[in-house]
Amino acid sequence: MEFATPFEITKEFVLKLEKAAQSHEDRFIIESLRGVEPADISVVLEELDGEDSKYILMLLDHDVAGEILAQLDEDVMLPFVAEFSPKELAPIVQDMQSDDAVDLLLEISNHMRDEVIAHINDKEAQMNILDLLRYDEDTAGGLMAKELIKANYKWDIVRTIEEIRRQAEDVEKIYSVYVVDDFDRLLGRVSLKEMILAKDHTKVGDIFEQEVNTISTDSSQEEVAEIMQRYDLEALPVVNARGRLVGRITIDDVVDVITEAAEDERNLMAGISEDVEEDDTIWKLSRSRLPWLIIGMGGGMLAAKFIASFEDDLAIIPVLAAFIPLITATGGNVGLQSSSLVVQSLANPLAIRESLAVRLLKVFGVALLNGLVLNLIVFGINMAMGQSMALSLVVAIALYTVVMLSSILGTMTPWVLDKMGVNPAMASGPFITIANDLLGLTVYFTVAHLLLL
Amino acid sequence: MEFATPFEITKEFVLKLEKAAQSHEDRFIIESLRGVEPADISVVLEELDGEDSKYILMLLDHDVAGEILAQLDEDVMLPFVAEFSPKELAPIVQDMQSDDAVDLLLEISNHMRDEVIAHINDKEAQMNILDLLRYDEDTAGGLMAKELIKANYKWDIVRTIEEIRRQAEDVEKIYSVYVVDDFDRLLGRVSLKEMILAKDHTKVGDIFEQEVNTISTDSSQEEVAEIMQRYDLEALPVVNARGRLVGRITIDDVVDVITEAAEDERNLMAGISEDVEEDDTIWKLSRSRLPWLIIGMGGGMLAAKFIASFEDDLAIIPVLAAFIPLITATGGNVGLQSSSLVVQSLANPLAIRESLAVRLLKVFGVALLNGLVLNLIVFGINMAMGQSMALSLVVAIALYTVVMLSSILGTMTPWVLDKMGVNPAMASGPFITIANDLLGLTVYFTVAHLLLL
Repeated sequence: MEFATPFEITKEFVLKLEKAAQSHEDRFIIESLRGVEPADISVVLEELDGEDSKYILMLLDHDVAGEILAQLDEDVMLPFVAEFSPKELAPIVQDMQSDDAVDLLLEISNHMRDEVIAHINDKEAQMNILDLLRYDEDTAGGLMAKELIKANYKWDIVRTIEEIRRQAEDVEKIYSVYVVDDFDRLLGRVSLKEMILAKDHTKVGDIFEQEVNTISTDSSQEEVAEIMQRYDLEALPVVNARGRLVGRITIDDVVDVITEAAEDERNLMAGISEDVEEDDTIWKLSRSRLPWLIIGMGGGMLAAKFIASFEDDLAIIPVLAAFIPLITATGGNVGLQSSSLVVQSLANPLAIRESLAVRLLKVFGVALLNGLVLNLIVFGINMAMGQSMALSLVVAIALYTVVMLSSILGTMTPWVLDKMGVNPAMASGPFITIANDLLGLTVYFTVAHLLLL
Repeated sequence: MEFATPFEITKEFVLKLEKAAQSHEDRFIIESLRGVEPADISVVLEELDGEDSKYILMLLDHDVAGEILAQLDEDVMLPFVAEFSPKELAPIVQDMQSDDAVDLLLEISNHMRDEVIAHINDKEAQMNILDLLRYDEDTAGGLMAKELIKANYKWDIVRTIEEIRRQAEDVEKIYSVYVVDDFDRLLGRVSLKEMILAKDHTKVGDIFEQEVNTISTDSSQEEVAEIMQRYDLEALPVVNARGRLVGRITIDDVVDVITEAAEDERNLMAGISEDVEEDDTIWKLSRSRLPWLIIGMGGGMLAAKFIASFEDDLAIIPVLAAFIPLITATGGNVGLQSSSLVVQSLANPLAIRESLAVRLLKVFGVALLNGLVLNLIVFGINMAMGQSMALSLVVAIALYTVVMLSSILGTMTPWVLDKMGVNPAMASGPFITIANDLLGLTVYFTVAHLLLL
């Protein structure tokens, strides 16, 4: 046997394929891609330009082409699909899983979308797509696919297997047969394992499992991820407000949701404002970073203006300047630690929570403790290094205040952002750094001015 | 029907159960937990102390108790299990899935582990556990379970279904039947869907799929995650060096790997050194933060010593101090952005990569471009605010240099850490901030000293 994993995608292979597409060597292309998984082909095609990749896609079967399109990175989908006419795209979209088809259609213009849908011949596929387009992308309805196997509770195993056979091509992965009543209301499920072990004339109504995890169409994708992860589910049936079975979410889509959420969060924490990767163009990389750099610089200029207003104090005690980085860095670190923990806890919507009062009290406790330890160390070092008692005290008092305030700021910010409907991870980014810098400097110079001058 | 999702876990429910455990109300406990998913019970038990949760666990069936233990957070496993004697724990461990059993056994002392294993009566379960303990936790071998369904290629469907029936209790989720030769070498797989659609006397050898994704026992868990995610797999068979089928990894375990990796990374980026959650004790929260705060403070004190050595310069031009936060913050932001992108790209072990030279050249390009934009803005504002031409120039030159150096430092650090076998996300944490602060200050004061004095 041949083991297909992992298919080695090399630069050379990509170049060969590019050349073959340009010189229309159809036979070579088809031979080279035989047996290669669609996911691997999509990685290769992402390296080619739109024209070449379209040429290759058009040589493949519609369902393979559809799987390849489904695996593309969202941000390359548009240039990719732009080469196609609606008439060329429609038969490929028609053969895609309904959720993937909709993800693709949401990337293109309204006009093109309508045209593609109008060109889809299979009425069922068309209806499925139109139905799914109604749901918000970030909800269970936006994640689900229409493809699933359902059986009326009155059916026996033989009849149900017939249904599986009829749908075998459409529903790639089955896992369970969902059991419904005459009104399509979900009653429960029979796993494929039980299907295999049951007798031919057993009624599914007699063997189905009643306690089934479900989710409603308007639940958030975070809830979907949390439930599937907590209960180790490979598929989750979606019901509408009346309990009717309307779709199914599979774990592969949820894994993508989890991965993307983690990436978004890292980008926010790192101050990168677009979904970029290392192999994007210099221009795109630059553009994704400038917004936060400029905002950060704005913060720096504000700080400069603020410090400059203490120019007279600095002229008398120039060594005051020495502790600026200590104050700002500590405030930043404390704020980041605090916010990060709140972001983590907000990301888990089903957890048992302590009340806000208890949590703030705890934040306060941790800050008191950590502030004390840091202070003793700094005060000790300063005295040992021969700084004056007064300056050592100023630094210690300012540092303690900054640790307390930054803890509270770091805890409240993600919480407030979340209430406002903004991704709370935003709080862990440069935002908290700037706020903490300004806060720290204000405290430090105010204390210094009051105690030293 | 009752919908089991999401089971509402309330503080009240937890308190009631705690009281029931303490007053030994066995009937109430069993009634309350009937039909509750093990994953939910484990969330409840995490809120109780070891004695109460042990009391509740001992009332439940061994296999349910095992599923509950398997769902516990790793960091509460030890106090949880400490209440049990080896003899009490063994029958529960025996009924767990082999991978979960090993995860639990790895949390307890060597001595206790040996005792528990010795008390396991089921010889097959004991062998499975001993076999899995040989593998490194972070490899495919450490992730896999021994439970799977395999069929000899000569078997027919009827014989294979018999095998499924025989194993039905041990293998909770089946997905596929793996096809092996007489030496247990993996030949391919038959999905359950195909099993259902095939005729009774078809030989599995005639219908199995040959191209199957597999992984070897010593592959890293990152590779496992990448392959299962790329090919949308719900299970991945694991083979040893001779191609023999030795285990199976299911997607639920990989989802946990992905989630934990994302959490570890966030903690590293935020400078939190332990796996903590918001509801941990003040002492644990404090301890997890102090290491980085103290290191950060060390950096701040070094910076203080460095700046103090320019005390004479500062006495002449006190406004020099004003731009310290601008320089350090910009350096920090640029460094963080650069490192974060490299960390992201290192996390994907199967991607096509540009050569290091091309990547560094690009980093350089982005830095040149962003440095230019930032510089024009800062220089403009400074001139507009009436700063001297000389000081404005010093700030601009220092800023440009810092942007360039921080980009390179931010790009190289995660790469070097990765080569050294350290989690590269470490580079995105306070580490890069400290390095950039010191770097920025050195550049700034050196330029100022050379040009202004």
